[in-house]
Amino acid sequence: MIVDLRSDTVTRPTAAMLQAMTAADVGDDVYGEDPTVNALEAEVADLFGKEAAVFTPTGSMANQIGLQLLVRPGEELLCDVKAHVVNYEMGAAAALGGITTRTWSTPGGRLDVPLIEPLINRPNPYATVTRAIAVENTHNIGGGTVQPVESLRELRALADEYGLGLHLDGARIWNAHAASGVAFEEYGRLFDTVSVCLSKGLGAPVGSLLVTDAERAQRARVIRKRLGGGMRQAGFLAAAGRYAIAHHIDRLAEDHARALHLARSLEPFGLCDASAVETNIVIVRVPGIAALAAAAAEQGVRISVLGPDWGRMLTHYDVDDAGIEHAVKVLGELAS
Amino acid sequence: MIVDLRSDTVTRPTAAMLQAMTAADVGDDVYGEDPTVNALEAEVADLFGKEAAVFTPTGSMANQIGLQLLVRPGEELLCDVKAHVVNYEMGAAAALGGITTRTWSTPGGRLDVPLIEPLINRPNPYATVTRAIAVENTHNIGGGTVQPVESLRELRALADEYGLGLHLDGARIWNAHAASGVAFEEYGRLFDTVSVCLSKGLGAPVGSLLVTDAERAQRARVIRKRLGGGMRQAGFLAAAGRYAIAHHIDRLAEDHARALHLARSLEPFGLCDASAVETNIVIVRVPGIAALAAAAAEQGVRISVLGPDWGRMLTHYDVDDAGIEHAVKVLGELAS
Amino acid sequence: MIVDLRSDTVTRPTAAMLQAMTAADVGDDVYGEDPTVNALEAEVADLFGKEAAVFTPTGSMANQIGLQLLVRPGEELLCDVKAHVVNYEMGAAAALGGITTRTWSTPGGRLDVPLIEPLINRPNPYATVTRAIAVENTHNIGGGTVQPVESLRELRALADEYGLGLHLDGARIWNAHAASGVAFEEYGRLFDTVSVCLSKGLGAPVGSLLVTDAERAQRARVIRKRLGGGMRQAGFLAAAGRYAIAHHIDRLAEDHARALHLARSLEPFGLCDASAVETNIVIVRVPGIAALAAAAAEQGVRISVLGPDWGRMLTHYDVDDAGIEHAVKVLGELAS
Amino acid sequence: MIVDLRSDTVTRPTAAMLQAMTAADVGDDVYGEDPTVNALEAEVADLFGKEAAVFTPTGSMANQIGLQLLVRPGEELLCDVKAHVVNYEMGAAAALGGITTRTWSTPGGRLDVPLIEPLINRPNPYATVTRAIAVENTHNIGGGTVQPVESLRELRALADEYGLGLHLDGARIWNAHAASGVAFEEYGRLFDTVSVCLSKGLGAPVGSLLVTDAERAQRARVIRKRLGGGMRQAGFLAAAGRYAIAHHIDRLAEDHARALHLARSLEPFGLCDASAVETNIVIVRVPGIAALAAAAAEQGVRISVLGPDWGRMLTHYDVDDAGIEHAVKVLGELAS
Repeated sequence: MIVDLRSDTVTRPTAAMLQAMTAADVGDDVYGEDPTVNALEAEVADLFGKEAAVFTPTGSMANQIGLQLLVRPGEELLCDVKAHVVNYEMGAAAALGGITTRTWSTPGGRLDVPLIEPLINRPNPYATVTRAIAVENTHNIGGGTVQPVESLRELRALADEYGLGLHLDGARIWNAHAASGVAFEEYGRLFDTVSVCLSKGLGAPVGSLLVTDAERAQRARVIRKRLGGGMRQAGFLAAAGRYAIAHHIDRLAEDHARALHLARSLEPFGLCDASAVETNIVIVRVPGIAALAAAAAEQGVRISVLGPDWGRMLTHYDVDDAGIEHAVKVLGELAS
Repeated sequence: MIVDLRSDTVTRPTAAMLQAMTAADVGDDVYGEDPTVNALEAEVADLFGKEAAVFTPTGSMANQIGLQLLVRPGEELLCDVKAHVVNYEMGAAAALGGITTRTWSTPGGRLDVPLIEPLINRPNPYATVTRAIAVENTHNIGGGTVQPVESLRELRALADEYGLGLHLDGARIWNAHAASGVAFEEYGRLFDTVSVCLSKGLGAPVGSLLVTDAERAQRARVIRKRLGGGMRQAGFLAAAGRYAIAHHIDRLAEDHARALHLARSLEPFGLCDASAVETNIVIVRVPGIAALAAAAAEQGVRISVLGPDWGRMLTHYDVDDAGIEHAVKVLGELAS
Repeated sequence: MIVDLRSDTVTRPTAAMLQAMTAADVGDDVYGEDPTVNALEAEVADLFGKEAAVFTPTGSMANQIGLQLLVRPGEELLCDVKAHVVNYEMGAAAALGGITTRTWSTPGGRLDVPLIEPLINRPNPYATVTRAIAVENTHNIGGGTVQPVESLRELRALADEYGLGLHLDGARIWNAHAASGVAFEEYGRLFDTVSVCLSKGLGAPVGSLLVTDAERAQRARVIRKRLGGGMRQAGFLAAAGRYAIAHHIDRLAEDHARALHLARSLEPFGLCDASAVETNIVIVRVPGIAALAAAAAEQGVRISVLGPDWGRMLTHYDVDDAGIEHAVKVLGELAS
Repeated sequence: MIVDLRSDTVTRPTAAMLQAMTAADVGDDVYGEDPTVNALEAEVADLFGKEAAVFTPTGSMANQIGLQLLVRPGEELLCDVKAHVVNYEMGAAAALGGITTRTWSTPGGRLDVPLIEPLINRPNPYATVTRAIAVENTHNIGGGTVQPVESLRELRALADEYGLGLHLDGARIWNAHAASGVAFEEYGRLFDTVSVCLSKGLGAPVGSLLVTDAERAQRARVIRKRLGGGMRQAGFLAAAGRYAIAHHIDRLAEDHARALHLARSLEPFGLCDASAVETNIVIVRVPGIAALAAAAAEQGVRISVLGPDWGRMLTHYDVDDAGIEHAVKVLGELAS
């Protein structure tokens, strides 16, 4: 039995999703002629109450396009110190967009708006000007943290006061919605650009979207082409995404319940803090985690090692209750 | 009847290719665990006699990764003035890689090595240093020009003398091979980095590869991730590519024959020069081509307009003999 | 009477410095033939016990060259959230060098090494890799804070453990030395690249240097030329710098004493905290500082406004005791 | 006797120029408070009939600021293949500005407008868009070529038709004016941005200016600061520039006469083509020029080697008739 808890990106399409892919009507999306891509873009834009969406091969590309739309070279983005956009996208914002960043730090990556205001540099001829703020929801390295909608509203008010753009790294916005009940339209209303990912909890094989207004979407297509993301018959991927959005959002609550059960079961062994689990991510803290992970892998349980004494487990639709029980048994025994 | 001659990128997968996609074994390629992607990369590397290949969502990304591997920011690439890498990739080499370019100009984009040597700046503390040369084969805007292998060998000798890298934009290297009979291994031997595209004449829906040595391939994966090209279960796309390589190379000669027939049939109407047709591209030269193209489109014949008085027609596997006859009839009548 | 406390950059050369400039022997420094520039570079390298130094038109350029020597595009620099290199150099590290940054935050910008270690990303194929750390000494926006040499040694040990480079923004290293007595050689020993500025407390009209090893200095000259900093007969500026180093370091203690006196005199009016004054910078905190500054300017006292409720006063050799008394009188009366 | 013909940048200030420098009234130019810099900027703007000018430490920086004002990252500049901006500025346009370039080639770098039009890419979603054209006048590597004003007017008309910006690399525009009699205002009228250099034929030690309209000049100051070109008491340098403009333009005709005499005297030895000499530059073509240059240097005659069989001699105010005779004698004997 293999229980792969390293990431929610490891899922394989279900038979029904594969069927949807096979049946997809496709065309050349560089010419804007792939009907399935067009349908997906329209559906996702509509879901978030925004004008347009642009399909991209990865969440990193969707994020970086969003940032480049809001911040020009030599201008500044603020984000938290553990944000995916500055830690796991190979320095793309600076390397490709010339975007400079300063960061704040909070426990669990939870948004704390009063910390942000003092960082803002207003336009002046001597200082780097702050142009946008990025928020990650749920927060990956923070442990699946759901950003409270009140904080997001407070952030929007701050951004409006200073004339700043807001980008939402919504790779797991589906999980935030499932946990909080906040409508996608509300997220769409609060942010200028939103990236969403089809290949994490939703289980599609490949693809993300950047959701924004019509003018920015047009510029996004130019940036996407420059980054090498202008695919041809991408409708096969988009079909999987459409299926995932139609069928896999509601079931995320199961992943959350399993993550909580996993954490509660392993908490007595000192491996994790169940009270910190909000969605489908469980942070594991234990010295020598690499050895533990290696031993667990031999028994079919795979977890992610992120530092010498910590790592991560994620639940997803390829992990069922039996998988969780197996993981609890293996990890519990190893930790004893 | 629709005859789409705008590009060889507009093809839809055949039933057999779709079957291969559906049956693909996939995994998370960001972790290097997609068996179909791994198999495709190994096959293509082997085909070109090189150590490694890296799958990318587009040919533009494969090209740009190749260029970044050979040239660092502030250093120089030489290429011809009509090259895809400087005309149709949205300035990516400069914008994303800081690569400066100077260009030479030749009829049909045909390589003329003695023109290149005077352009080379050797390393010195006062001048921009030339680091690499890019060649396109077949040459797209040049009209499907096949670069003579003798010229490529001469270029390699020049590059070796000056210590320069060589990149091959091989988006249509399949056509060059079909027309010239030069082995893929020969191309692989002559160039340090080679991009190949699965979604043009070969007919796969999405995907290209960068073929190079093992050390550069490792760096290529970092650059690919930075550009946002690190896809997850990309094996569905790779499966189509594997099928295309196994089954669609030999049939390119048909496309070439049809292109020549098309050109010969339209030459009497003054639309093109059949003697310039070497592969699957026919350049159309006629004043007011936009009006001609619009009128033809109403009768189901689509061609590409690239300037006020010129455009392009490409043959591919979704265009059969009947389609060619229809195109000849429609365009001939309109041109009369 | 004009008392300009906005910055220590506003000084005009003394008669003796001007005499040194006029007498300078000069040549074309792009060819490495300006004897005065060469002498200055050798003297400053020697002062810091390093192999080489490179003259630049500004401290910003010296900093940015240092950063580019240590960090390549897409790699990461860590620094504090109020550092000059990310706040007052127009986003150059990202815009020109593709360098991504994350920041820590401490009171007064004082180095707190244990805060830094958790930020470091080691090389791995999924994360942005941390390559260097920058420290500002004295810390400008922090209020002229002197970084304790023990902390700098601790930082060097941390950097060595992780294989990181260390850059010192030493625009006011002269003041740090004057306040702490730490030898310049000690600073040179602890950092891989050091920028020093001749036009702040030392009073030269124009110019900074980047101090480093011989190999990096050679690359620095290429980067300097790319940035547009390769000047011709720069010996006139270098002569002023040589004079300043020979004659103006010892007198910085006077500036520090005057700054402390200024702060103590204004503390009773609630304008500043004298206990925070370590060198020649006094931070002023008062609501509506813009109005205060405007009123003071009318009476000849100029201070720097940096936010709605704070600003800065700097002492330098164009401000004498009488100037300080005048400033105290004017600001004290306005604050009452 | 030393006769340095390597470049017109090697001049040392005259006594009168040095006197002007010593007497300069200076201030902090970062705050816009250096009266001599301000006066120089106003004078040069006025000379070219434009709204504003911005002082920079080098001509490379003035050029690069001009290009960045006209072309954004990922957009294209066209220029000739031997232009200084792409050959001798270390790839700055691409590395720092993300500007992509294609080049045309003409004998002597002489502008040939009909060659340029076919290179222009109009805005469209698939192609890199051309935004500006750069012209060098006089053309340095071309051999001091003066661009005919009729060609410049033709270029302006072309640029207007396509909505393109025009940058003039006017490092030696003084020589073009001296040779052609075309008014500086005419050059100012024809170009959107003009760089001029004070440290070549005019003989100032350091400094250039970018001349443009008021809005662009404001943005130029931000870019200048980002590049590290925001100097403090730059008035000493500006004073030399003001002196040079007032006193050294008229005398350039002497340099031109001496260059022609030098070329005519050496033509019989097969070293150069006197008919190609238009200003103060003489191109030397001879196999094994490095050996010739080394031998000449031993007798005090210094020339510039630019390739295995060619180099350059420039006249300037530190070379008088006796120097020319000495150079003729030494080079003539060596070539015999």
